[in-house]
Amino acid sequence: MADREELLPPMKWNAWGDPAAATPLSDGIRSLLKQALGVADSDAAELDADQVRLRPSGLSQTDRDALTAILGADYCRVDDRDRLLHAGGKSTLDLLRRKDSGVQDAPDAVLLLGGEDDVAAILGYCTQHGIAVVPFGGGTSVVGGLDPIRGVFGAVVSLDLRRLDQLLALDEVSGIAEFAAGVTGPEAERLLGERGFSLGHFPQSFQFATIGGFAATRSSGQDSAGYGRFNDMICGLRAITPAGVLDLGRAPESAAGPDLRELLIGSEGVFGVITRVRLRVHRMPETTRYEAWSFPDFATGTAAVCAVTQTGAGPTVIRLSDEAETGVNLATTEAIGEQQITRGCLAITVFEGTEAHVESRHTETRALLATHGGRSLGDVPARAWEHGRFSAPYLRDSLLAAGALCETLETATDWSNIPALKAAVSNALTTSLAESGTPALVLCHISHVYPTGASLYFTIVAGQRGNPIDQWRAAKAAASDAIMATGGTITHHHAVGTDHRPWMSDEVGELGVQLLRAIKSTLDPAGILNPGKLIP
Amino acid sequence: MADREELLPPMKWNAWGDPAAATPLSDGIRSLLKQALGVADSDAAELDADQVRLRPSGLSQTDRDALTAILGADYCRVDDRDRLLHAGGKSTLDLLRRKDSGVQDAPDAVLLLGGEDDVAAILGYCTQHGIAVVPFGGGTSVVGGLDPIRGVFGAVVSLDLRRLDQLLALDEVSGIAEFAAGVTGPEAERLLGERGFSLGHFPQSFQFATIGGFAATRSSGQDSAGYGRFNDMICGLRAITPAGVLDLGRAPESAAGPDLRELLIGSEGVFGVITRVRLRVHRMPETTRYEAWSFPDFATGTAAVCAVTQTGAGPTVIRLSDEAETGVNLATTEAIGEQQITRGCLAITVFEGTEAHVESRHTETRALLATHGGRSLGDVPARAWEHGRFSAPYLRDSLLAAGALCETLETATDWSNIPALKAAVSNALTTSLAESGTPALVLCHISHVYPTGASLYFTIVAGQRGNPIDQWRAAKAAASDAIMATGGTITHHHAVGTDHRPWMSDEVGELGVQLLRAIKSTLDPAGILNPGKLIP
Repeated sequence: MADREELLPPMKWNAWGDPAAATPLSDGIRSLLKQALGVADSDAAELDADQVRLRPSGLSQTDRDALTAILGADYCRVDDRDRLLHAGGKSTLDLLRRKDSGVQDAPDAVLLLGGEDDVAAILGYCTQHGIAVVPFGGGTSVVGGLDPIRGVFGAVVSLDLRRLDQLLALDEVSGIAEFAAGVTGPEAERLLGERGFSLGHFPQSFQFATIGGFAATRSSGQDSAGYGRFNDMICGLRAITPAGVLDLGRAPESAAGPDLRELLIGSEGVFGVITRVRLRVHRMPETTRYEAWSFPDFATGTAAVCAVTQTGAGPTVIRLSDEAETGVNLATTEAIGEQQITRGCLAITVFEGTEAHVESRHTETRALLATHGGRSLGDVPARAWEHGRFSAPYLRDSLLAAGALCETLETATDWSNIPALKAAVSNALTTSLAESGTPALVLCHISHVYPTGASLYFTIVAGQRGNPIDQWRAAKAAASDAIMATGGTITHHHAVGTDHRPWMSDEVGELGVQLLRAIKSTLDPAGILNPGKLIP
Repeated sequence: MADREELLPPMKWNAWGDPAAATPLSDGIRSLLKQALGVADSDAAELDADQVRLRPSGLSQTDRDALTAILGADYCRVDDRDRLLHAGGKSTLDLLRRKDSGVQDAPDAVLLLGGEDDVAAILGYCTQHGIAVVPFGGGTSVVGGLDPIRGVFGAVVSLDLRRLDQLLALDEVSGIAEFAAGVTGPEAERLLGERGFSLGHFPQSFQFATIGGFAATRSSGQDSAGYGRFNDMICGLRAITPAGVLDLGRAPESAAGPDLRELLIGSEGVFGVITRVRLRVHRMPETTRYEAWSFPDFATGTAAVCAVTQTGAGPTVIRLSDEAETGVNLATTEAIGEQQITRGCLAITVFEGTEAHVESRHTETRALLATHGGRSLGDVPARAWEHGRFSAPYLRDSLLAAGALCETLETATDWSNIPALKAAVSNALTTSLAESGTPALVLCHISHVYPTGASLYFTIVAGQRGNPIDQWRAAKAAASDAIMATGGTITHHHAVGTDHRPWMSDEVGELGVQLLRAIKSTLDPAGILNPGKLIP
């Protein structure tokens, strides 16, 4: 008999993560909100979960009985609490929608799968009976990837993968761990840690998101400079599709035709359900070294970070905040608004590995940063960044509750195009938000670097005006149009979901969209998997 | 008016590469062949090009006129010399077939394209009139990727891309060069070198192969430890398909769905014609350092190379010959058979970059190799390896002419599976060749390393017995079956072509094959592009 509580997603239904970790706003940030954005110093009352009026489950009794027969009564759930906790992801739009005192939408049932046979059986049943299926891992999507869209079907079920929670194999010689898809970030690190290994994938969603979700969304973690993007870590993976099983990745690299692994990575549940992932892992680092740097301005800092990356100097983490972000001290979220490092641009470096490896990387990196105009700030600000690295979404909860609009968006481009893209996106956001009647703080940092370019991650704080959902939609559309017009990608690591879908034709071209549709038709001929996501 | 000579492929019609670079067999190797393999000390007479009886061009006068109208008379060629030079690639099977005094096959015409408009026009015409098309770059395929297969069509044309020979753009800040597909390896390095940059892609085919061919075959060069595989270098690429244009790669990395670039990389001309590739390049290295090492045996050497790779110590080149390969000194082909370093296992390391970068990588690598049982041999053997790095195929020409059977094949697997895979392939080859009546030398090295595994590259030398084509086919099939049964990939960097196609269902599964067919149907609905290759 399953423990019903244990199997509920741990995140709050209407906010990020663990309720106990909520971040109250500091006096500094309250004063900033009031002075800069005209946001009054008062928290509005929140809706309680039991006050939410949920659209009744549209699943027929016949379907409910059939799904229960496959999974068992404990694992096919139609009560409101389960449905509400699977109603969507954690974008600002999601959180604003959860404040709606009207009828809110949710999947018609939550199915808690116990294994690959369950996945195949459920996909078979849903294909045959026309029920849409939304795969659900940690529930951290910030792009509408979990929206309970029924498409042409009468019902939609949430396919919760949390019970697939095993470390299936660990090859210590090759450094390869095989995980079931529902293992969360912390659980993966715990299971590997017992054997002296680490995965090293720390996106902001780390505490809640799952291995399968990381793969399905082409996730990238904060240590990507050292350990790569999640797609770089994937040796192989297995997906159950309505058309059968795909088990890909026979070798570290191959020239046996196109790399079909790359079709499942980033497939966002529209092609199949990823059930297993074989991942590159590494020995737990012997040592970790931290150093923060200050640059006079973003252009100088960018050139320095570019030099480190193109030389291959090899830090595990390297990130650079722009003047605005450095000014409000967002890089170290615990101290936001307090006056510590508020001039120039703050950069963070971290080095992990053996003593010799850390020493050689650190020496090479610091020489390059110093040559390119950096001034060392010592280790404290870098340690502070690491300590607060998963806190920003909690701050957003508090800001939204306090009447501010707060959201993030991200893109990537070639080094030479960084200044133009940053300016275009910032301008689009401030212009759109000004039209809605509010000034806006637009903060930006580089957090993922490649020899040829980098990501740009924007944090936007403004006052809520009118309907904040419409207000943010307009600003986001303006930013997305600016990204496409200025040569960026519509998303560097948040994925597509519903929110970026209108820009996919620009991203991959009409023929690229046709390819995605052809792959979809082959693997999911009935189109039950995650309708309305990814493919326009 | 085109210079007809200039546009002929520079490789010999019946042997590797430049006729002037042919390698006569040393006394050492002649004695080895005689003693170990029973190969008599005599060279058989070779067929001259004008003695070859070529299947007459099957292209109708109407088609010939139409294609000439598109390209101009100079660029639509049906004479035997052009056709023979496009008759196939450079595998041992190809070279043995060129010795056939019966009728040899060749494409029905050679089309020398001048630009992307030509590609689109030719694909349009051939789609409409049912003519098969084989894209042709440097002509170095060793897997039958250029075989003039007509499939269901009455004629096949070779689409020679050599006139697409421009460096189209160089972004020095981002380190991105855009090349037209027909630029050869040396020409790419020359064009970049003028601007102080280098690509760093040096497969054995480097001297003849093209940028488009590298992309179409998922090539990997000898400096892959430092500069990555060719697919790692690709920022973006453009392909003309019968269904339209694909232009992929808006940013260094993206989470905007599956990475569709990876569908064109390794597509071997079956989906479209790659016309442009945007590539990561780097500043010309300030310095290069060499060091060779000796290990007591292959297992010790493998563990050492694995440690260097998993630590991320960062050599530009790292390779390890097994005892047999070290014994015949093949790693330094110029000295093959001569007694210099013939005990234990020889490893080569090379470091390129800035002085500081080379110093830190070299220090870290040598400490690890020494800790793991290596003994330094100084720089001389490593320099000798680099000097002779492109010579092995010339040696094969001489061996074939001398009555020996000589070929290479390669695979890759996880580190823990290296011993089993190496043993299984070696055993399959020696057993099969013994059945044909000859002992065999099976030499092996690791030349491409990844954190989780490595490639295994086998060189086989035996005596020709009976029909050497059948003899090699049997040995190759035995080796391929052993690779699939022992968890390797059917090809790590030679690609699929016709030769590996029977193993593709095992490699990617039946559903993977269905995916490839669906993509093919979308991009090339008439199926004119490179029939009989890649997709079973």
